[in-house]
Amino acid sequence: MARFLKDRSKAKGMVPGSLVLIGRQKMDKPIVQLIRYNEADLLEETVGSFDEVREKLQAEQVNWINIYGLHDLETIKQLGVEFKLPSLLLEDMLNTDQSPKYENGESYDAFIMKILHTEEGSKRIHAEQITLVLGENYVLTLQERKADVFEVVRERIRKSKGRIRARGNDYLAYALTDALVDNYSILIENIGRQVEDIEERLFKQMDSKLVEEIYQFKTELNYIRKAVRPMREFMTSLLRTEDTFFQKKNIAYLKDLSDLLVQCTEAVEMYNNMTSDQLNIYNSNMSNRMNEVMKTLTIFASIFIPLTFIAGIYGMNFEYIPELKFKYGYLVFWIIILILGGGLLIYFKRKKWL
Amino acid sequence: MARFLKDRSKAKGMVPGSLVLIGRQKMDKPIVQLIRYNEADLLEETVGSFDEVREKLQAEQVNWINIYGLHDLETIKQLGVEFKLPSLLLEDMLNTDQSPKYENGESYDAFIMKILHTEEGSKRIHAEQITLVLGENYVLTLQERKADVFEVVRERIRKSKGRIRARGNDYLAYALTDALVDNYSILIENIGRQVEDIEERLFKQMDSKLVEEIYQFKTELNYIRKAVRPMREFMTSLLRTEDTFFQKKNIAYLKDLSDLLVQCTEAVEMYNNMTSDQLNIYNSNMSNRMNEVMKTLTIFASIFIPLTFIAGIYGMNFEYIPELKFKYGYLVFWIIILILGGGLLIYFKRKKWL
Amino acid sequence: MARFLKDRSKAKGMVPGSLVLIGRQKMDKPIVQLIRYNEADLLEETVGSFDEVREKLQAEQVNWINIYGLHDLETIKQLGVEFKLPSLLLEDMLNTDQSPKYENGESYDAFIMKILHTEEGSKRIHAEQITLVLGENYVLTLQERKADVFEVVRERIRKSKGRIRARGNDYLAYALTDALVDNYSILIENIGRQVEDIEERLFKQMDSKLVEEIYQFKTELNYIRKAVRPMREFMTSLLRTEDTFFQKKNIAYLKDLSDLLVQCTEAVEMYNNMTSDQLNIYNSNMSNRMNEVMKTLTIFASIFIPLTFIAGIYGMNFEYIPELKFKYGYLVFWIIILILGGGLLIYFKRKKWL
Amino acid sequence: MARFLKDRSKAKGMVPGSLVLIGRQKMDKPIVQLIRYNEADLLEETVGSFDEVREKLQAEQVNWINIYGLHDLETIKQLGVEFKLPSLLLEDMLNTDQSPKYENGESYDAFIMKILHTEEGSKRIHAEQITLVLGENYVLTLQERKADVFEVVRERIRKSKGRIRARGNDYLAYALTDALVDNYSILIENIGRQVEDIEERLFKQMDSKLVEEIYQFKTELNYIRKAVRPMREFMTSLLRTEDTFFQKKNIAYLKDLSDLLVQCTEAVEMYNNMTSDQLNIYNSNMSNRMNEVMKTLTIFASIFIPLTFIAGIYGMNFEYIPELKFKYGYLVFWIIILILGGGLLIYFKRKKWL
Amino acid sequence: MARFLKDRSKAKGMVPGSLVLIGRQKMDKPIVQLIRYNEADLLEETVGSFDEVREKLQAEQVNWINIYGLHDLETIKQLGVEFKLPSLLLEDMLNTDQSPKYENGESYDAFIMKILHTEEGSKRIHAEQITLVLGENYVLTLQERKADVFEVVRERIRKSKGRIRARGNDYLAYALTDALVDNYSILIENIGRQVEDIEERLFKQMDSKLVEEIYQFKTELNYIRKAVRPMREFMTSLLRTEDTFFQKKNIAYLKDLSDLLVQCTEAVEMYNNMTSDQLNIYNSNMSNRMNEVMKTLTIFASIFIPLTFIAGIYGMNFEYIPELKFKYGYLVFWIIILILGGGLLIYFKRKKWL
Repeated sequence: MARFLKDRSKAKGMVPGSLVLIGRQKMDKPIVQLIRYNEADLLEETVGSFDEVREKLQAEQVNWINIYGLHDLETIKQLGVEFKLPSLLLEDMLNTDQSPKYENGESYDAFIMKILHTEEGSKRIHAEQITLVLGENYVLTLQERKADVFEVVRERIRKSKGRIRARGNDYLAYALTDALVDNYSILIENIGRQVEDIEERLFKQMDSKLVEEIYQFKTELNYIRKAVRPMREFMTSLLRTEDTFFQKKNIAYLKDLSDLLVQCTEAVEMYNNMTSDQLNIYNSNMSNRMNEVMKTLTIFASIFIPLTFIAGIYGMNFEYIPELKFKYGYLVFWIIILILGGGLLIYFKRKKWL
Repeated sequence: MARFLKDRSKAKGMVPGSLVLIGRQKMDKPIVQLIRYNEADLLEETVGSFDEVREKLQAEQVNWINIYGLHDLETIKQLGVEFKLPSLLLEDMLNTDQSPKYENGESYDAFIMKILHTEEGSKRIHAEQITLVLGENYVLTLQERKADVFEVVRERIRKSKGRIRARGNDYLAYALTDALVDNYSILIENIGRQVEDIEERLFKQMDSKLVEEIYQFKTELNYIRKAVRPMREFMTSLLRTEDTFFQKKNIAYLKDLSDLLVQCTEAVEMYNNMTSDQLNIYNSNMSNRMNEVMKTLTIFASIFIPLTFIAGIYGMNFEYIPELKFKYGYLVFWIIILILGGGLLIYFKRKKWL
Repeated sequence: MARFLKDRSKAKGMVPGSLVLIGRQKMDKPIVQLIRYNEADLLEETVGSFDEVREKLQAEQVNWINIYGLHDLETIKQLGVEFKLPSLLLEDMLNTDQSPKYENGESYDAFIMKILHTEEGSKRIHAEQITLVLGENYVLTLQERKADVFEVVRERIRKSKGRIRARGNDYLAYALTDALVDNYSILIENIGRQVEDIEERLFKQMDSKLVEEIYQFKTELNYIRKAVRPMREFMTSLLRTEDTFFQKKNIAYLKDLSDLLVQCTEAVEMYNNMTSDQLNIYNSNMSNRMNEVMKTLTIFASIFIPLTFIAGIYGMNFEYIPELKFKYGYLVFWIIILILGGGLLIYFKRKKWL
Repeated sequence: MARFLKDRSKAKGMVPGSLVLIGRQKMDKPIVQLIRYNEADLLEETVGSFDEVREKLQAEQVNWINIYGLHDLETIKQLGVEFKLPSLLLEDMLNTDQSPKYENGESYDAFIMKILHTEEGSKRIHAEQITLVLGENYVLTLQERKADVFEVVRERIRKSKGRIRARGNDYLAYALTDALVDNYSILIENIGRQVEDIEERLFKQMDSKLVEEIYQFKTELNYIRKAVRPMREFMTSLLRTEDTFFQKKNIAYLKDLSDLLVQCTEAVEMYNNMTSDQLNIYNSNMSNRMNEVMKTLTIFASIFIPLTFIAGIYGMNFEYIPELKFKYGYLVFWIIILILGGGLLIYFKRKKWL
Repeated sequence: MARFLKDRSKAKGMVPGSLVLIGRQKMDKPIVQLIRYNEADLLEETVGSFDEVREKLQAEQVNWINIYGLHDLETIKQLGVEFKLPSLLLEDMLNTDQSPKYENGESYDAFIMKILHTEEGSKRIHAEQITLVLGENYVLTLQERKADVFEVVRERIRKSKGRIRARGNDYLAYALTDALVDNYSILIENIGRQVEDIEERLFKQMDSKLVEEIYQFKTELNYIRKAVRPMREFMTSLLRTEDTFFQKKNIAYLKDLSDLLVQCTEAVEMYNNMTSDQLNIYNSNMSNRMNEVMKTLTIFASIFIPLTFIAGIYGMNFEYIPELKFKYGYLVFWIIILILGGGLLIYFKRKKWL
């Protein structure tokens, strides 16, 4: 099954900016959550409609609207109307094939990013799309389905841990992105550890299982790179952008995030190089083995085939084979056999094949 | 047959700027179509001459002149005169080998692009050239032959779907290019899906068919890249160009298109890397197999060739072979055979060849 | 013989700027031709001395001085004096190993370029150096020996085809360079067609001839790149240079030439990648073949070597081999042989080696 | 065990800027050392608390505070308070996976760098993190555990060797970094010497030990690059930064350091290329060997297997085999054998397999 | 022995800027030569002390001080004092591992460069360091030992050839560097010629000698690149530097030199690519050969092993083997053998193995 690109043919011929969900529907009904807080108060509830959301937003607090489920186009359209998001952005939100990108709109900063996760019992990494929109007085997140990558942030809000409750919407946006990137680095490190472990098996184990694993890591690393590299790039461009909704004082956090993304891409490249090297080494080892196998065969065959021929000669039934009648014929035969066999052994020893 | 470059020798020695069709003629007679519309009206008809076109153009409407067939040089010359296009541009239109390029003329923006399509029942991608000229009050498209890639745009115009009827010539130019790029991304995704499918066969199937398929995908990806990469580049340069016929308000659409082209080239690179990895893995697997084959041969030959030699000895007809007369000669022979054979088996087992 | 670099040792220890011909002498006597024209007149003759040239130059006409043969240092020195060319440029003209370069002098624009041609019956490409100097009222070309790459331009001048007779020295310089680059693109396309043809033989033909051809194309492409890439680079830098002898109105021609050179280098890269891919595929195919060969050997040997051993046993002459006396001994032997052989066949079939 | 990335999962869900030690604890208790000097005086002592440090700092002298051991979070927090270091920097100090980076703070210049060392009796390189903070009147170094890489600087201070005692905090920061980089270049040179030594064994020794060594060097070089490359980059950016705590007059030293880092990265790249080349050569040699082995086998088998067949024929017990009765049967047999064997020998000689 | 990096451990722990000779001592006693000239006069002598040098320097003439031998640290220190060279530069002069670099000092332009030479009867290239310092009224060159690369310049000065006697110190510095670079291009061309020659042996000769040669060229090219590439880079940066001691009128010479260095690095890259291609081709050829060998073995073995088995059957001594008694048994045996053998031959022919 294609993991890297989903079926866009549904969207073929669509008006640009018209809303179509590309990718499979992953939930039954979209869920809209609101978390609103400042240092003193915290409100966390699931809301039914955007009217409700609009009423509850408070400019002097942090407002985080989190939506699970992308398939209800009506909801997405309302969202667009409510938060004045252009239709091209809404379209990108729905196109789950979209590469990570950053858009610096007039009334918002939008980030399209990927949540990477492995499914239970599988090494395969799957990506889900997340859109984060930072407006003047809200943070909006939109996910394909319920996932727990943001739960750590929610916990911090609830427990009022760290600075989060004292800071604004932009810090929340940072904290959410940071949770995402943290997740990448754990994934990469996970694969990295396994790639480094292969190193130890490389000179012991020689079967296609190892090759299969190496290939799998290579593919997963490709997959991660696809999510991380564009993010690293837009983070750099974000740092250069003047008029974002990030406050000056929080820029240091973004810089830190950018550094972490650089670190992630470099780790991905390094592990990718390591898998390539490992494959080369595997092939060299394979040649070594093959050579050893062939030498064994050659020594056995080259010694015993000529000897068998000699034995064959004296197994012939010609009426007149003088040697057969010699008194020491059989003894001489053995002497010849031993000299020949020994000679060949010495020959192969000299060639260092033994 | 050469797909990547067509026969330029016809054009050898030609004056630069003189008109010669490079590439095969693909239609009998050129067809000139006019689609003229605004929000209220829509005119769609095939016209006979450029005089007719000139009469029917209306500055306050969108005028799309679409021409199929490049071979009638007279038509192209008239076109040049009618729309004041320089002869070098006309020459580029006719050179179907031309790399995609963008030209920012004084009275027009010209785009030379490629339509990619696979022929029925074949995986081979073929490119046809399309020239799009955006003038102040017209959009001109010129194709080698009739193709349906723009039909989706025509449908939208007819059905008045989306914003298209309310917008200008520049939006039409964008919509047409978007249809083209959409088509690329569907093609790439198509190949991508097949490349990903190879992954699953990689550890099961071992024949030259697989190699042939991988090579084919590699070649097709090369081919697509040749069309897409220059387009991505000129799109970036278009976004930096000040005085184009694209209105400010439509720049967001071009930016979106540019993002899509980036996404396409990245997907092409990724799939290309994947095919390279797959070929490497295939080779490693092949070595594994070969090794297994050789081990089987070596074990069989190394055990039975010496044993055959021993049997050969006692098949000899020397008059005096004492062992043959021994009462338990045959029994001892079998004991020796079993010890020797068993010993070799253990030896190979220790070497982990079994 | 070294094609890529010629023997510079002659020039060792020479004063920089001193004139030495590096490369072999390719003609007996240098020939100096003058073609002078405007829209009305055309003069074409071989002149004997530079004094004659000086007399015949007319500022209000286009003056093309073409020289064949580099070895007569006296001629080159006079040339330097006559056209006020610095000695370092003269030295570069004579060093036929010189990479293509562009020099923006005060009273001239100088281009050192390569003519590429294949010799009759050979696929090998050879490069000859051509220097083109564009002054205020002359175009000077200097070639190693007579070649016909400029004949097409001469024809156009003679037949007054196209714009050439109506335009200035700079247009002539452009037209000559264009003829050269056209020649490159024909050469590349030629090789390209052959490289694409290899594709079809890749899965059928398996011998070192194919490898040799692939290698040859790779080498020729290397060779072409060496001529084309620096040219593409200096063309870009020429387009950025302000004070050249090219008129503003002819810049579009240079831009077109620059595009063609980009196209050429990209084609060279693409074909180079294709040859690399083809070599990889060849190797994979080779492994496939080898594997098939080895499987055939292994199956034959692994089945018949043990069987031969069994036959060998009952060919022994031990006095007491009970089986030999059994009534159905021979029958049982055949049954055993068939079971064993069949068993091995099934074993190999299960392994998918059959 | 994973060397390249350490277990970050502990830190998962942590507030950004909250302090967690990533990596293993390497010491029992942190040690804080103070070295304070000017040209006249030198104070060197282990201090117990930061209060003590604060008292002893003297603005008109160089103050070097060196801390071993990262695990006592309380100490790190105090450090942050004492020297007004932002929490994100403290977090980076504790994250021993952190890529080398430079931070240009308002009241400090911070460098996160790596100490590379090989453990006794092992070729494996291990990295430990070192943070160097240069403030207006202090240099702060923070290491995971006691290491002697800075001992050379301490010696120079003690012995008042060179310029060090006459210069400021910035020169000390330079001297410490220089000691670190010197250490890199010794390590690289060490590996380089071994890589060059492999060259000599490459055409003599053919076993997996050699492959293993090459792979190991490749991995170590990867590891070094990971430490050196980011340092080279931040050194370049440091040289461009205006408002650092480095005095103008000491910039030449930084430039020298930057040159040394460039030299280090280039050496790493070169050795890395050399190991790749060596692996390729090893594989070619392996093929050569294999070919030789196979030729030996083929010659022996192809000559003696047919001969054995012929001998087998005349060992058959058919009642009527006329040849067996011929007077010169046996002689003719030998003649045939010799002609056949000789013929095959000549055949193989002609093929150049002998 | 390590050629690429020399033993720096001596220098470990040294104060930066302290003088230590890295590399082996190559001469007994340093020699100081002075060549002083203008158009009229020429003085050439070996001087004993720097006091003598100081006395003899004449501002209105060109003063070239050439020093052979680096080991006498006292001399180097005096040199530093005499010409006001900073200690970091002196240190670089002594570190013979130093990458080529250019330093634009206040009172001098310093170039650290490499002399490349092959030792008699060896293909190995060795590098020696040369430092060239251009001051306002002197040129200082410092070499590890006596070498003749500058002899050509000395000859030109003596014989008053070319412009050299009429020009200043900067022209001398250029002429010396030019001699050095000329030497590189001769070396590269030398290797290049040999690399091109390998091409012709590539399809004829198949042994590890060829691989060894290819590897050697690859290594030598690596080595040359290490000397040439940094030089090309600093030459570019020199051309951009404003306040050097090179006069405006001599810039054209530097530009020419820079072009030559570009040409050298490109030739190195091209030859390096060629050796890589050759190695790939060698491997493909090796596979071809192996395949041929294996096919020969397989055909012989697959035909004669089954036949031998059949002969073995009728060599058995079962009491009852009916076929043995048949009148035409032996004839039938031969018919079967011929059919079987012929059948296998046809089978292999169909498979195109014959």
